[in-house]
Amino acid sequence: MALLLAERDRIAAAARRVMVRCDELARVTSAQGSIERVYLSPEHARVNRLAAEWMREIGMTTRQDAAGNQLGRAGDAASPALMLGSHLDTVPDAGRFDGIVGVLMALEVVRLLRDARLPFALEVVAFSDEEGTRFGKALLGSSAVAGTWEPQWWTLTDADGTSLREAFLEFGLDPGRIAEAARRPDELVGYLEAHIEQGPELDERGEALAVVSSIASARRFQLVVEGEARHAGGTPYDRRHDALLGASEAALAVERICRAEHHVIGTVGQLEAYPGAVNVVPGEAHLSLDLRGEFDETRDGVWRSIEREIDAIMGRRGLRWTAREVHSAPAVFCAPLLQDALREGIRSTVDTAEDPAVIFSRAGHDAMAIGAVTGVGMLFLRNPDGISHHPDEAVSEQDVARGIRSLAETVLQLAADR
Amino acid sequence: MALLLAERDRIAAAARRVMVRCDELARVTSAQGSIERVYLSPEHARVNRLAAEWMREIGMTTRQDAAGNQLGRAGDAASPALMLGSHLDTVPDAGRFDGIVGVLMALEVVRLLRDARLPFALEVVAFSDEEGTRFGKALLGSSAVAGTWEPQWWTLTDADGTSLREAFLEFGLDPGRIAEAARRPDELVGYLEAHIEQGPELDERGEALAVVSSIASARRFQLVVEGEARHAGGTPYDRRHDALLGASEAALAVERICRAEHHVIGTVGQLEAYPGAVNVVPGEAHLSLDLRGEFDETRDGVWRSIEREIDAIMGRRGLRWTAREVHSAPAVFCAPLLQDALREGIRSTVDTAEDPAVIFSRAGHDAMAIGAVTGVGMLFLRNPDGISHHPDEAVSEQDVARGIRSLAETVLQLAADR
Repeated sequence: MALLLAERDRIAAAARRVMVRCDELARVTSAQGSIERVYLSPEHARVNRLAAEWMREIGMTTRQDAAGNQLGRAGDAASPALMLGSHLDTVPDAGRFDGIVGVLMALEVVRLLRDARLPFALEVVAFSDEEGTRFGKALLGSSAVAGTWEPQWWTLTDADGTSLREAFLEFGLDPGRIAEAARRPDELVGYLEAHIEQGPELDERGEALAVVSSIASARRFQLVVEGEARHAGGTPYDRRHDALLGASEAALAVERICRAEHHVIGTVGQLEAYPGAVNVVPGEAHLSLDLRGEFDETRDGVWRSIEREIDAIMGRRGLRWTAREVHSAPAVFCAPLLQDALREGIRSTVDTAEDPAVIFSRAGHDAMAIGAVTGVGMLFLRNPDGISHHPDEAVSEQDVARGIRSLAETVLQLAADR
Repeated sequence: MALLLAERDRIAAAARRVMVRCDELARVTSAQGSIERVYLSPEHARVNRLAAEWMREIGMTTRQDAAGNQLGRAGDAASPALMLGSHLDTVPDAGRFDGIVGVLMALEVVRLLRDARLPFALEVVAFSDEEGTRFGKALLGSSAVAGTWEPQWWTLTDADGTSLREAFLEFGLDPGRIAEAARRPDELVGYLEAHIEQGPELDERGEALAVVSSIASARRFQLVVEGEARHAGGTPYDRRHDALLGASEAALAVERICRAEHHVIGTVGQLEAYPGAVNVVPGEAHLSLDLRGEFDETRDGVWRSIEREIDAIMGRRGLRWTAREVHSAPAVFCAPLLQDALREGIRSTVDTAEDPAVIFSRAGHDAMAIGAVTGVGMLFLRNPDGISHHPDEAVSEQDVARGIRSLAETVLQLAADR
């Protein structure tokens, strides 16, 4: 192996190109002064066009699939493919690397291995929706590829009331053809995804790269608290059923319960009070809950504790509440074969006697969905201070270079094993 | 006095008309299926036109003043005027009586007293902004009439970023002429306002009407909490600076501190988290605080306690916070002369040996602002269950009839005393 030892300059140039392109993609945004790129938006179409251009530049054939994912392919048309990639959509006020860097690194791996004779084709995929920013439901793009798209998703709506079905039509996609995006297991060798860690572990350990062992199980809920909207001046406390105060207690209860449980983390990212006037006691409050755990059982146990606690809070305040589950994904374990190949890839890149770090991912990734159709492997890149989903999100060019090389070595390792 | 004893049928018809017109005005709304009418909106223009029509119908001369208030006048042009009225703007998802019923009752009083020879003119005013829904600052319409308009208000913006100045121009008003809306003390005999109680006190006492003794002092703040937006999965609790959890604790602290102090009530009516994505730890939260007290000193003492407590909360969580005061009004005491006249008015209407109820208003009213230019008096109408700022807000037709008669008797009482 170590075919790439002589390629130091090419790899440095590749990392440089990835950083420049991250900047270029960051300029494709719907929000002035910050980055926001959601599913089926004009910005989605623009980054797909850019990605397709970059795919063709390295000799790949390209297509946009029935779910708006952008794909490129190199190699024999009849062979099964090793798929590499990540996503190009973002959260609001996002950083410029989450997902994006994985797509761009995949392109560089294909460029580096252009002349290598591989026993499989290479595909690069830029997933269209991983974050779930627009419709509340995450992993839409990769679920379509995994063949796990669910018909009830069509009626999900965005903040403007546009349904997913309407958004498909507006984007120029045909909802009736969604099944065509699904891949068969025999078409795929596996899926490799490089991603920034979105946490501080590698940074704290002083290491550049890690093999991912598994991806957290995740459930998301939309909670509605109902009380009574009343005049802020005229209504004494004993007559109030303040939905916002109930929601505030619920958010604090989530923190308290999850903090006591090491392997689960819960976040209330959205909270809004209605009618939302300065002089009206809130009659309704909406909040989101994102719950992740290393193991499905612990996570579900924590959710039951949260439910009991919220019941008690709302009972005390004379409020009603409901929770609607909008996302549920079991923990996904990375394929041992791909974990081994990634470990070898990192070893031949990073000169150290020790084994590379193995990390459990609390964040969800497209690999979670793709795990339903093929084996998945993930490479984590050091994320300084662990900041992600924030404009300060960062990754160093040097670590990107290390990542590109490790990923290319991993592909060669898989080719040699096959 | 008791000129109106023989007018039972006319008064019943007047109350009926008030109820029908409350329904008619409720249909002028910017929100489908609910009532919302904000300052300088197309709905504001429409209700002004309707009010002007109804004023002319009873022989009043009409004008819209420089702040968009609708005025009608009956009587000698040179005489000082007794002003009667309230406001026509609403909170979001409002009821149909708050403010509105006072304007419509004033019109009926003028109709009833059309042939009475009074030593002053009568004016009816429909204030354009009492709630402060659109620009966060309440009592804009009545402040203009009181001559207490402040130049810094021009840069207040609504949720769409439109400034108050721009909204004036769009509505067809000239910001440069705002001073023309101000009245001189010698032009006015006083101001009388009928209003639903917006609280349960009269309902609990089983009485229809009350004289208001004073109107609560009120301060409003917009609070901003700043933390750090981070990935919901990847960021362990110890690394989080969750602005929403800080804001939730602050909202609960307001409730706890105010509950312990009998004469102050505090409400967080608005709370929003940013960036507001399900999978991002909130980096910023905005919340409103409305603080009312019977006495300025207690209210300000409570605000200092809240400040200290929020300082402690944010310190513990590594968050920053700021508060911007957007409204401040001292307690306003109703003029003894007008309180006496209202008491006589109620006595000659409601057949009881006992003195009518005297109530302190925790809710703010246009009378607060008008108190700066002339003596003010207020009549409260029973508000079943005390529900206000809510579609279920109610007042009975019979109580409206009682209120109209009391108010007319009050005007005759003032005429006799003069």
